[in-house]
Amino acid sequence: MNVNSFLRCKTPDLWLEQAEDNLSVLLIDHANCEKKAASTALNLMYRHVDQTEMILKLSKIAREELRHFEQVVSLLKDRNITYAQLSSSRYAGELRSGARTHEPARLIDVLIISAIVEARSCERFSRLIEVLDDELAEFYQSLLKSEARHFLFYLNQAEKIADGEAIQDRIDLFLEADERLILTPDPDFRFHSGVPVT
Amino acid sequence: MNVNSFLRCKTPDLWLEQAEDNLSVLLIDHANCEKKAASTALNLMYRHVDQTEMILKLSKIAREELRHFEQVVSLLKDRNITYAQLSSSRYAGELRSGARTHEPARLIDVLIISAIVEARSCERFSRLIEVLDDELAEFYQSLLKSEARHFLFYLNQAEKIADGEAIQDRIDLFLEADERLILTPDPDFRFHSGVPVT
Repeated sequence: MNVNSFLRCKTPDLWLEQAEDNLSVLLIDHANCEKKAASTALNLMYRHVDQTEMILKLSKIAREELRHFEQVVSLLKDRNITYAQLSSSRYAGELRSGARTHEPARLIDVLIISAIVEARSCERFSRLIEVLDDELAEFYQSLLKSEARHFLFYLNQAEKIADGEAIQDRIDLFLEADERLILTPDPDFRFHSGVPVT
Repeated sequence: MNVNSFLRCKTPDLWLEQAEDNLSVLLIDHANCEKKAASTALNLMYRHVDQTEMILKLSKIAREELRHFEQVVSLLKDRNITYAQLSSSRYAGELRSGARTHEPARLIDVLIISAIVEARSCERFSRLIEVLDDELAEFYQSLLKSEARHFLFYLNQAEKIADGEAIQDRIDLFLEADERLILTPDPDFRFHSGVPVT
């Protein structure tokens, strides 16, 4: 499964232009996203102690996300950008609001949403590489590979937990939500924000 | 600063005897403690984005704790011990209940408490090494060194945040609480529990 054929839409050029003009916000929000990705993995490790193989894999993913977090924070430091508090993008919260609340449906939905967030991050990195300076482009190129691995892990893990039950309707539902959040106007520029309001 | 001269008391022999008889509970609770230590570091990273050097160090500590978590879960798997849900010990919760709630006092207290939890873990590992089988003894010997490093980091970080203000009265307060929790009867055997109820 390829990230670009999985997602329903590409990042709009207008977002990319906005990213070039708001590099500090992009990097701060990116640091927050890595921290959030580690938290999500850790939360799943708390809720599902019976899934030994899954929690071992999630712990490794959390360590990778924390390593990326450290790399982004070091970049902020090198560039004299203050790591200020920044409100979250609407993106992850709105995706998560569609998750069912009973198990194992909740777990399946959270895994699908995590797969989509990783896929979208991967797609954004590949677009950003076109416009960023060499240091950032090289860094984002290296992250792209891990995000693609994480995407596949989350998607396969959702299939495993579903244990033969079809989950394509859930994947479609969250892919549609992702498409809407990426292609509709969004007042707040963030790593996963929609089209800039002009 | 040495862990044993820092703490007010040693682990009682009765606890050690109980640990030998409850190896499964000890290992499961130990896995939970490593996960909890990673969460505590991550929570501090969320609250204090302005402390760049501290959050970089905390992120590295969280990665180490997660690595230990994976090692304990792998040991559980090798020994056919089911990683079941297990209630927390009274220890960390009661220590945390003494933390002040305004900043930077809250941060100073949480750092001191974290230092004490790491020191106590370190002391328990060194006692456990006397009675456990070779594989576990070797593993705990390796953890001992990281916990001692974490202990020193948390203690020094509390001093740094206090910025010259005396914190010995806070350290004394939490060391007394640790001593009470370790030396008084405790109905639930856990990694940080008190004296067994006979």
